[in-house]
Amino acid sequence: MADRSAPSSNSAFDRFAARALPAFERALAEALPPPVPRAPALSRAIQDAVLSPGKRLRPLVALAAGEIVRAPLPAATAVAIAVEYLHAASLALDDLPSMDDARRRRGRPAIHVAHGVATAELAALALVARAFEVAAQAPETPPRVRARVVGELARAVGAEGSCAGQAADLAADPARLTLEDLEAIHAGKTGALFVAAVRGGALAGGAGDETLEALTLFARNLGLAFQITDDMLDLAGNAETMGKDTRRDAHRANFATLFGPESSRKLVDELLEAAVSALSPLGRKAAVLADLPRVVRDRQK
Amino acid sequence: MADRSAPSSNSAFDRFAARALPAFERALAEALPPPVPRAPALSRAIQDAVLSPGKRLRPLVALAAGEIVRAPLPAATAVAIAVEYLHAASLALDDLPSMDDARRRRGRPAIHVAHGVATAELAALALVARAFEVAAQAPETPPRVRARVVGELARAVGAEGSCAGQAADLAADPARLTLEDLEAIHAGKTGALFVAAVRGGALAGGAGDETLEALTLFARNLGLAFQITDDMLDLAGNAETMGKDTRRDAHRANFATLFGPESSRKLVDELLEAAVSALSPLGRKAAVLADLPRVVRDRQK
Repeated sequence: MADRSAPSSNSAFDRFAARALPAFERALAEALPPPVPRAPALSRAIQDAVLSPGKRLRPLVALAAGEIVRAPLPAATAVAIAVEYLHAASLALDDLPSMDDARRRRGRPAIHVAHGVATAELAALALVARAFEVAAQAPETPPRVRARVVGELARAVGAEGSCAGQAADLAADPARLTLEDLEAIHAGKTGALFVAAVRGGALAGGAGDETLEALTLFARNLGLAFQITDDMLDLAGNAETMGKDTRRDAHRANFATLFGPESSRKLVDELLEAAVSALSPLGRKAAVLADLPRVVRDRQK
Repeated sequence: MADRSAPSSNSAFDRFAARALPAFERALAEALPPPVPRAPALSRAIQDAVLSPGKRLRPLVALAAGEIVRAPLPAATAVAIAVEYLHAASLALDDLPSMDDARRRRGRPAIHVAHGVATAELAALALVARAFEVAAQAPETPPRVRARVVGELARAVGAEGSCAGQAADLAADPARLTLEDLEAIHAGKTGALFVAAVRGGALAGGAGDETLEALTLFARNLGLAFQITDDMLDLAGNAETMGKDTRRDAHRANFATLFGPESSRKLVDELLEAAVSALSPLGRKAAVLADLPRVVRDRQK
């Protein structure tokens, strides 16, 4: 079996990732807040949350969307950084004892395990704030677009986005959950930030409404498929491969527990097909994004 | 003794507050996120955090700064709403068991006491996101200014602002704390958002650098004085008047515990004098803000 941690070089997305990631990782680190003089633990927690090895799927999606409309690289990179900071913040929050109470993430101790609960909470808030600062100050981007991207990112993580999804997930009664409920929960928890990533990347290049709509539909389907594969991998429970506590959701209702692996796999295939179809108006330019459904289908972690 | 909960009508600030507050309170409620269908507890927590009776000092400061430069009222109101949402979020976070572990706030149970820790954490994040959304979409405001205000608000609450202050406060060793440390902690915890409030309100009216500098100096001194009076009132410990747990900080080093009531009072007077002086370049136009030091000096809660 091939080592999936090394990108295979023969697919459009893997080639794109290999080309875009080194500079993005540097920019991601450079945009972190300066060290906090009287609270070094806060700085370490912020760094841990962002710089621990991640798949960077959301920022890569933002960068790939930017390329479709020839966005200036610094403009799309600012959006991608903001998206990844928001994602890192949401992981730190979701892992808290009050939420999913997870002790490992990305192969390392969760942020609150390494740095304490209060520091994890503050690191998450600091990263959210930094995300909006970076988006508001994106270089080579008209102010009108910067303000719009801030608004879209804010909705994606707020009470109409990931906060709503996480709160609904915590409040859900597994015995009474419907497919519609689950889709709404995951549209918030995962879908909203994927959508903001593609839209933000495309807005950085001045995309028009038609392009934005195609990308939105793509991201909504891709995000949901990604979440279902997450549930399936969690239930299969290879903590070592996943780098985080698995089977934490086994007592909670999710796609995998509710519908079983076979129906879940079928739903994933349908969603990924819909994601690819959504891109058809964009033609060849969307080849990198169009390769992502394969990445999600094949993911092992 | 006069009832200080009813504003006396013979001072510039009280008259301004009586005039500005009714419309502001309506706008504050109307800008809240729409109800979250599958997580009513999150919506209730968000409403509680924002709509419980507060002094609204920071948004009033933003509105008063806006009046100095004749900012359109809807523009200054958006900044004021964003500032109050950020303030409400920081109170909900500061009260958490992992932080100050306070059980009462504004005369009511703290957000996590009423709604649970996870919901309080999510409500705080949702309010932070909404604050940036409101600021990014401020009406009658040029996009360039909206993007700039988002950046300034983000710095005020992030790892160079209130997060840094709160983290430094939690990390501080009371036995080794200097005046400089305390000032830095409170510049972050309280000063930064006061500064962002005046600057944001003034930017909404297109203020130039000189005006911004005067207002910044004013707010920095006022914010620090406000925090010291907070410490003094906390130590004096009238929980009923304060509407929150008091003497929670008695074991922690703060201005009141470190320097005693007399020196603290003297420091407050010096800071408030500096605050008034800072406004002198603005002349009569700053009469409402220039009255605020009196409000802080006389505060009983």
